[in-house]
Amino acid sequence: MTVVVSGGAGFIGTNLVARLLADGVRVVAIDNFLRGARSNLVDVLGHPAFDLIEADLADPVACADAFDAAAANAGSIDAVWHLAANSDIAAGTSDPRIDLRDSFLTTFEILLQMRRLGIPRLLFASSSAIYGDHGDAELSEDVGPFFPVSNYGAMKLASEAQASAAAEAFLAQVIHFRFPNVIGVPATHGVLVDFITRLKAEPDVLRVLGDGTQRKPYLHVSELLDAMLIGDAKATAKVSAFNIGPVDDGATVKWIAEQVVARVSPGARIEYGAGNKGWLGDVSRFSYSTARIAGLGWSPRLGSHAALTRAIDEIARAEGFEGL
Amino acid sequence: MTVVVSGGAGFIGTNLVARLLADGVRVVAIDNFLRGARSNLVDVLGHPAFDLIEADLADPVACADAFDAAAANAGSIDAVWHLAANSDIAAGTSDPRIDLRDSFLTTFEILLQMRRLGIPRLLFASSSAIYGDHGDAELSEDVGPFFPVSNYGAMKLASEAQASAAAEAFLAQVIHFRFPNVIGVPATHGVLVDFITRLKAEPDVLRVLGDGTQRKPYLHVSELLDAMLIGDAKATAKVSAFNIGPVDDGATVKWIAEQVVARVSPGARIEYGAGNKGWLGDVSRFSYSTARIAGLGWSPRLGSHAALTRAIDEIARAEGFEGL
Repeated sequence: MTVVVSGGAGFIGTNLVARLLADGVRVVAIDNFLRGARSNLVDVLGHPAFDLIEADLADPVACADAFDAAAANAGSIDAVWHLAANSDIAAGTSDPRIDLRDSFLTTFEILLQMRRLGIPRLLFASSSAIYGDHGDAELSEDVGPFFPVSNYGAMKLASEAQASAAAEAFLAQVIHFRFPNVIGVPATHGVLVDFITRLKAEPDVLRVLGDGTQRKPYLHVSELLDAMLIGDAKATAKVSAFNIGPVDDGATVKWIAEQVVARVSPGARIEYGAGNKGWLGDVSRFSYSTARIAGLGWSPRLGSHAALTRAIDEIARAEGFEGL
Repeated sequence: MTVVVSGGAGFIGTNLVARLLADGVRVVAIDNFLRGARSNLVDVLGHPAFDLIEADLADPVACADAFDAAAANAGSIDAVWHLAANSDIAAGTSDPRIDLRDSFLTTFEILLQMRRLGIPRLLFASSSAIYGDHGDAELSEDVGPFFPVSNYGAMKLASEAQASAAAEAFLAQVIHFRFPNVIGVPATHGVLVDFITRLKAEPDVLRVLGDGTQRKPYLHVSELLDAMLIGDAKATAKVSAFNIGPVDDGATVKWIAEQVVARVSPGARIEYGAGNKGWLGDVSRFSYSTARIAGLGWSPRLGSHAALTRAIDEIARAEGFEGL
């Protein structure tokens, strides 16, 4: 079994590569090192079943060359885990071309290469952001309308759509995994990195965007991988989508801020802003049904709070704070 | 009131331009004349409230220049009716770059220009193709999943998604009009043009793709315009979607073939193929709920059969067949 992992040097990609190699899968990671880094992969760079290719998959020629190189190294390719994307929602709101290029054109070009090389299966890192803002209504996979409120969510939905059409035309199977907020290391951005690095620079005060009441579910990357591998092994439909997330209603920004302060800078003052939207394009709260992936046998062991506690410690250590 | 109509020289665009001018609206049509034609607009080219700009809206520089020219000619622009797209589903299945460029990147670039120039409203020509194949289940606007089976449908869904995100960030209003099969003149493609031009070339036999049982709803372009103008006038939500279609279960390919033969080549033999899918990416049958647009006061006077009879006659005349 040989797979390509796009975005394989990024946060989730790095974790997936390690897991797949441990499971005996041959892995070719492709990354442009824009947000990912070669240093994230030091533990596997010498692994005999691992290859790493630097390429910008949104570029038609570079993408074709990368897949040719992957096929030349690895023989036939059984699947692509497509994780390459812009992961910074706010950056994509400022400049929509970032999400167009990194979150959608990567998908578009990868699908063309899959058609050319006859690669049958796509495992896609989609997002809860495709749903847009449904308030407190529970989101199951088929609940419309799908009106994303960020360019990030829009380009994830565009990617799902293009992959679905590809399944009709030439792919054997597509699975859309709709990620929640995923936390762990090597983290590159997000609320935990933001809080911890700011306290590192200014230990006395943590200024929080919004009033702290914003509540979201968080999942640890290790449990996300469990869910994706179960979906990969058990999903049977030609095109399917799975919400992945914890089975609780999440944690508030206030709780997170307090935990981060307690872990890295006890006694720091927390100052809140106004409103419960963190940034334009952010969905301030949502409730996520994960019954479908649970039906395949997946259940998270950690709730949002336990996942956060673990990830705060992991990121704190990575940022040089001593262990507790 | 000044509006831009993208794809204003195409089939539906031409009809919309004439209707808007008749309603006293100042119109700037933009078209790349790839599928549209200047000759479609002969009746309005001298109209004092009409401008026509040739530009490929998928090209960032050309799109910006076209909108600058539109604003320079017309002063501030109140809305964009975005109809520019690849309308040939089969062509987009062969070469996905056609739909990427003509159906999605046009939307993407237009939205950037709307942000730059502060144009507040987008009226978007979306499609029933965004839903994918739901079999006989009735399609209301919010029914998921949205797994399109054609690149055309995928890029229409991508356009809806990007426009929805734009509404969160800067637009005042977006309305997605989800078109059914729309018929009338000046038609450029589709089953009626296909049948009539083939009988013109070979009057004795009409060869039909598929077994003729494929059934779809058809709407005459005049009634589509009624629906869009009602939606434009009455929709109040920031982002809304409206299915538009006849309130019947459509007409079969067999019925259409028989009507076309009777109109343009009586006595010609009809030969059917196998299967009930016309081409890859085609949704062979679907049932469409139009309750939402009906709730705003729209109801079509013509059913699918009457719309087809009228359009067959219109296209036959345009192709040089004498009137009945």
